[in-house]
Amino acid sequence: MKAGTIYGVGLGPGDPDLMSVRADRLLRSARHVAFFRKPGREGQARRIVQGMLAPNAIEFAMEYPVTTEIPLSDPRYNRLLSAFYADCTVRLLDLSTAGQDVVVLCEGDPFFYGSFMHLYTRLQNTASVQVVPAITGMSGAWTATGTPITWGDDVLTVLMGTLPEAELTRRMGDTDALVVMKIGRNIDKIRRALRATGLYDRAWLVEYAAMPNQTVTPLPQAGDRVAPYFSIIVVHGQGRRP
Amino acid sequence: MKAGTIYGVGLGPGDPDLMSVRADRLLRSARHVAFFRKPGREGQARRIVQGMLAPNAIEFAMEYPVTTEIPLSDPRYNRLLSAFYADCTVRLLDLSTAGQDVVVLCEGDPFFYGSFMHLYTRLQNTASVQVVPAITGMSGAWTATGTPITWGDDVLTVLMGTLPEAELTRRMGDTDALVVMKIGRNIDKIRRALRATGLYDRAWLVEYAAMPNQTVTPLPQAGDRVAPYFSIIVVHGQGRRP
Ligand SMILES: C[S@@+](CC[C@H](N)C(=O)[O-])C[C@H]1O[C@@H](n2cnc3c(N)ncnc32)[C@H](O)[C@@H]1O
Ligand SMILES: C[S@@+](CC[C@H](N)C(=O)[O-])C[C@H]1O[C@@H](n2cnc3c(N)ncnc32)[C@H](O)[C@@H]1O
Repeated sequence: MKAGTIYGVGLGPGDPDLMSVRADRLLRSARHVAFFRKPGREGQARRIVQGMLAPNAIEFAMEYPVTTEIPLSDPRYNRLLSAFYADCTVRLLDLSTAGQDVVVLCEGDPFFYGSFMHLYTRLQNTASVQVVPAITGMSGAWTATGTPITWGDDVLTVLMGTLPEAELTRRMGDTDALVVMKIGRNIDKIRRALRATGLYDRAWLVEYAAMPNQTVTPLPQAGDRVAPYFSIIVVHGQGRRP
Repeated sequence: MKAGTIYGVGLGPGDPDLMSVRADRLLRSARHVAFFRKPGREGQARRIVQGMLAPNAIEFAMEYPVTTEIPLSDPRYNRLLSAFYADCTVRLLDLSTAGQDVVVLCEGDPFFYGSFMHLYTRLQNTASVQVVPAITGMSGAWTATGTPITWGDDVLTVLMGTLPEAELTRRMGDTDALVVMKIGRNIDKIRRALRATGLYDRAWLVEYAAMPNQTVTPLPQAGDRVAPYFSIIVVHGQGRRP
């Protein structure tokens, strides 16, 4: 029997109309659909494809074992996650060995800070894996602001809000255009770093880019709102423009 | 009469199958299609949509006045380009005023170092303009290498090969993951900067990502080949991975 293919399919920022033609086709015809989610949640990726899957699609929800109780620095965190990914890998491999194709839903672009990467590296030498790139969350975010992100020779720096404050500050102070992802509970730290580097007044907060509940707010007007996990801060470059 | 809308439509890296569902629909139904190209060339954006446009589509090739004879630093360069963009703007506005929608073809994502941005800023207050984001060339490139670009807290830096060598070197020496665009005649300078920062052996050269003539080569194996304009260098991040 021919082994099935495991597809890591990027869904883009959220609007199904912004999925690639290939993603759209793979999703609508998929027999097996896997996706990550927090226990007890619907899952963002699954929500995006609502109404697109075939009625007979078999779903495999891969539920994260850890949420936020264990700090990232705790060795248990890595051990738990690693076992979880290994387990998901086995399940996907079983399907593939049985000749079944599986579509794994990925938020944004799979190879850009994506969770699927952890399965990909475990599968790439033993299974047929194909990755379908997609529009990143940040492209969705800067498009939503209605202003281009980079011009001419602008340097773009992409930072995770989980970085230490000193590191955020140092790097924000040395770039033309800026994207900060993984905001959530890091918002205050990020705000301080933006203030310290003079970028605060030019920063925009985009929540749920390209989703029905999208918001686009100049950061100074966002008050002390805690941003959700699905939010991105952008500071536009101001490079050469004839 | 209702004014027409000017659509800046991102085409993605090149494969029509990687266009968004929205881009695909807009392209196939477009009455007016505008695109940039060098004089005497077919134009990369136009080539990507070959076979997709309606038979009665009216094409407007916006031909760049300057090629490479005038250095970027010469004030004439900016003046010529600026007059050119102003002229294109008038032509697009005329169509819009006449009630016609126009689709402007954009390589990759329109707001990410795109030429359309120069028309967008001139049009945004006088016309109805809509921008359709797309998969960037760099997403196409890192997907083609078969290796994820960023993990965990990795910092991603995007640099233009047109930057001075000292600047390239400084920034390459201070990032986890790297993307360099606008390679072409800058390749030797970029190579030196990569060598100076110890990234050379991990660098990949991707030419024409997601196009029929795509090549993916570890940079040290690319010899002293001069890379085409449509090429990207990537160095993958190696961040935390449970
Ligand atoms: C694990 S990363 C995944 C990134 C994804 N692979 C991509 O290409 O955008 C999760 C982070 O992506 C950002 N993100 C992704 N899609 C987003 C969207 N539609 N709106 C806002 N933020 C988004 C948020 O900052 C979130 O914390
Ligand atoms: C003016 S910028 C336009 C970038 C585009 N808006 C994007 O989102 O990728 C042109 C540069 O993009 C890069 N590029 C865009 N698409 C590419 C592709 N399919 N393959 C290789 N390089 C590409 C090249 O480095 C080229 O010099």
